[in-house]
Amino acid sequence: MSTATLTPFKLGPASGASAALAAPGAATHQAVHIDLGDRSYPILVGPALLDNPATFAQCPQAAQALIVTNTTVSPMYAQCLLQAISPLYKQVHVLALPDGEAYKDGATLNLIYDQLLGSTADRKTVLYALGGGVVGDMTGFAAACYMRGVPFVQVPTTLLAQVDSSVGGKTAINHPLGKNMIGAFYQPQLVVCDLDTLNTLPVRELSAGLAEIIKYGPIADMAFLDWIETNLPALLARDPQALATAVRRSCEIKAWVVGQDEKEGGIRAILNYGHTFGHAIEAGLGYGEWLHGEGVGCGMVMASHLSQRMGWVDEAFVQRITRLVKAAGLPTVGPDLGAERYLALMRGDKKSEGGDIKFVLIGNGPLSAGGSGPGTATTQSAPEALVREVLAACTQSAA
Amino acid sequence: MSTATLTPFKLGPASGASAALAAPGAATHQAVHIDLGDRSYPILVGPALLDNPATFAQCPQAAQALIVTNTTVSPMYAQCLLQAISPLYKQVHVLALPDGEAYKDGATLNLIYDQLLGSTADRKTVLYALGGGVVGDMTGFAAACYMRGVPFVQVPTTLLAQVDSSVGGKTAINHPLGKNMIGAFYQPQLVVCDLDTLNTLPVRELSAGLAEIIKYGPIADMAFLDWIETNLPALLARDPQALATAVRRSCEIKAWVVGQDEKEGGIRAILNYGHTFGHAIEAGLGYGEWLHGEGVGCGMVMASHLSQRMGWVDEAFVQRITRLVKAAGLPTVGPDLGAERYLALMRGDKKSEGGDIKFVLIGNGPLSAGGSGPGTATTQSAPEALVREVLAACTQSAA
Repeated sequence: MSTATLTPFKLGPASGASAALAAPGAATHQAVHIDLGDRSYPILVGPALLDNPATFAQCPQAAQALIVTNTTVSPMYAQCLLQAISPLYKQVHVLALPDGEAYKDGATLNLIYDQLLGSTADRKTVLYALGGGVVGDMTGFAAACYMRGVPFVQVPTTLLAQVDSSVGGKTAINHPLGKNMIGAFYQPQLVVCDLDTLNTLPVRELSAGLAEIIKYGPIADMAFLDWIETNLPALLARDPQALATAVRRSCEIKAWVVGQDEKEGGIRAILNYGHTFGHAIEAGLGYGEWLHGEGVGCGMVMASHLSQRMGWVDEAFVQRITRLVKAAGLPTVGPDLGAERYLALMRGDKKSEGGDIKFVLIGNGPLSAGGSGPGTATTQSAPEALVREVLAACTQSAA
Repeated sequence: MSTATLTPFKLGPASGASAALAAPGAATHQAVHIDLGDRSYPILVGPALLDNPATFAQCPQAAQALIVTNTTVSPMYAQCLLQAISPLYKQVHVLALPDGEAYKDGATLNLIYDQLLGSTADRKTVLYALGGGVVGDMTGFAAACYMRGVPFVQVPTTLLAQVDSSVGGKTAINHPLGKNMIGAFYQPQLVVCDLDTLNTLPVRELSAGLAEIIKYGPIADMAFLDWIETNLPALLARDPQALATAVRRSCEIKAWVVGQDEKEGGIRAILNYGHTFGHAIEAGLGYGEWLHGEGVGCGMVMASHLSQRMGWVDEAFVQRITRLVKAAGLPTVGPDLGAERYLALMRGDKKSEGGDIKFVLIGNGPLSAGGSGPGTATTQSAPEALVREVLAACTQSAA
C-alpha cells in the first residue's frame, strides 16, 4: 500500500489545485487531476461540456480527428462533439460502431483501423471516444496501437464510463475465453464527463453505473458509502447535484488509486472489487447478456460473502451491500452456471497466478486478528471450499 | 539531435561495461546494452547461446512460458531453446506459426492469444520469440497486449532480426493498407543473437539482413561502411568473426539511436533509411513477394538518389551504395508499380504528416551550403517533382 492519503469526502466542488483545471469560462465544472508524470491529465465533470469548444481548447491539433461512437449514441451527440472540436482539425470523421459488449472484439476493432487507414490518418491524428465503456475501451486500444500510438480523448456518455472505465488508461477488447484479455495501459489526453448525457441513459445502464460508484465505498471511503445510501433515490432520479458529487468523488478515488499504481502491480487491483465473480458471469452467459455493471453489482455481493466467510467482515456488512446493490436496481444472485464453470472462468481471470484465483476481499485480514473491516480492500486468494460455499449460497442453483 | 556520442567503430569484442553483461561462463560472447531506464536490457551476441541455460538465467521465472516460432525454424531450434529455459518454468509450450510476411496479420496474432488463453497463461507468463522479424514483431506485440503486457525475450534467428528488428522494442502487425501500422513500443527483457543460427539461413535471407547492416553506415558511421565494403565477401561466406563484428556494431548503433529516442519522436526515424520506398514496394507487390530487406536495399538506393537530387550527397555516394547493395545480392531497381501507386503508398507511411511524405535523406542539408554528406541522416519532406524523377530513374518502368 502507498503512503499517499486520499482527501476526505466532502460535498460541493473539488478543492484547490484541481478546480483550477476546469475549462475556461466554465464556472459550474469541477476537475479532478490524474497525476502520472508526463502522462497526467484532467477529468472535467459538469453540464454542457460536450458541445463547448472551450472544453477541448487544450487538445492536440492535427490534420485529422476521428470520433468513434456507436449507433445508439451517434444520433444524439456526434454532431455536437464534431462542431465543438472542428476548430482544431482540417477533417473530422465519425465512425459509429455496432452497440454492445458483444461487439468489443477484434473484428470491430478492425473497423477503426480500416477507417483510419482508409482516410490516410497520420500519427498525429486524435481519436475521440464518444460513448460508454465499450466505445472507450476499444477506441483507447485502437489509439494505443494505431501507428504504435496516437493521442485520444475520452468523452464518456454513460455513468459507468464516467466513474470508472474512461479514467485510468485501461483499454482492451474481449476474447471468447475472457474479458479484457487483449489490451494496453494507455492514458488519454483528457476525460470529459458531460453530466447532461446521463439524461438520455436507459435506466438499466444508470443502475449499471451505480454499481461502480458503490464499489468505491467499501474499498476506500465508508463516508462516501454512507452518502450513497442516503442519496440513492436522488441518484436514481438523476438529480444533477447528486450525480455531480457521485461522479466527482468516484473519479477522485480512482485518481488516487491509479496515481499510486498505474499498471496494476499492486493496489490498483482493489478497483476490481466484485469483478472476479462479475467477469465470470459476463463471460459465462455470453457478453452482452448481463451488463458489466450488473455483473459487478452481483459480484460485489458474492465477494462480500467470501470476505465474511474469511472472517474479514461481519454479516451486517454483507446485508448492507446486498441491500444497496438491490436498491440500485442490480441483481444480487448469480446465474446458474455451475460451480465448475465459475471456477474455470475465474482461474482465467487476469489477477490469477499459476491457476490460483485472486479475489478482492473487503478489509485487510480477519476481524478477530484486528482486521480493518470495510473501507479498505486486499487482493488475496481464498480456500476453494469457501469459494464453493459462496457459489452455492449466491447463485440460482442455490434457489 | 542528441548530444550523446556514438563510440567509434572498432574491431574485436565490445568494450568496457557492456562486455561485463555477457552470460556467465560465456567467454566468447559480446554484449550490447540498451539504456532505457527501467526498460533497459542487454543484447547478447555470440555462438552457442540458444541452447545454453546460462544465457537465460536472469529471465523472469513464472508458471508458464510460450515459445512462439514458425514452421521453418521450429524443427531446427525449438527443442534446444525449450531445454535451455525449462529450469525456469513449470510448463513451456511451443507454438509454430505459418512462415512469412504474408502471415504478419491479425488472424495469425490471434493464434498466439488463443494458445495463451487456452492454456490459462497468467500475466507473469514469459513469451519467447524464436525466429525472424515476423515472429519477433508479432510475439512482441502479443506480449504487449496479452493481459495488457507480459514479459518477452527475443531470440532472433535471422541476420535481419539480429541486427535490427529484434532490438529497440518496435512491435507490430501489418494491415492490408500499410506495413507495421498496428503495433506498440514494447521492450523485451533480453535479446539473444545466437550467431550459429545464421548457418542455416537461406542465402536470400542473408542478403536481406545485409541490407539493414549496410543501412547503419550512411546514417551514422562511415568507418563501419568502409569495413562492410571490405568484408562483404567474408559476410556472404558467413565468416563467424565477420558476422560477430557486423551484428555487434549494428546493435551498438541501434542502441545509441534508440537510447536517445525510444518512441521515435525524432532521431529514431533515421533508422528508416530506405524504408519509405521499401515499404511501398513491399505493400505494392503484396507482403512476402519481396523480403523486407530486399525492399530496404532497393529503397536505400532510391533514397540516395533523392538525396543527390536534393544536393545533399554526390553522385559518387549514390554509385557506392548502389554497388554495395547489388554486391550484397539485393535488388537496386524497384518494381513497376507506377508513380501514382508509389506516391499513394508512401503518403500512408507512418512518418507522413498531413499527406506530406517524409524521407530519410543522407546528410543534413545541401553540400553547397556546408551539408555534412554521408554519415548523418535527416528526416525531411522532398519536392514531389524530385520524388517522381527518382521513381522514373529507379524503377522498372524506366528500363
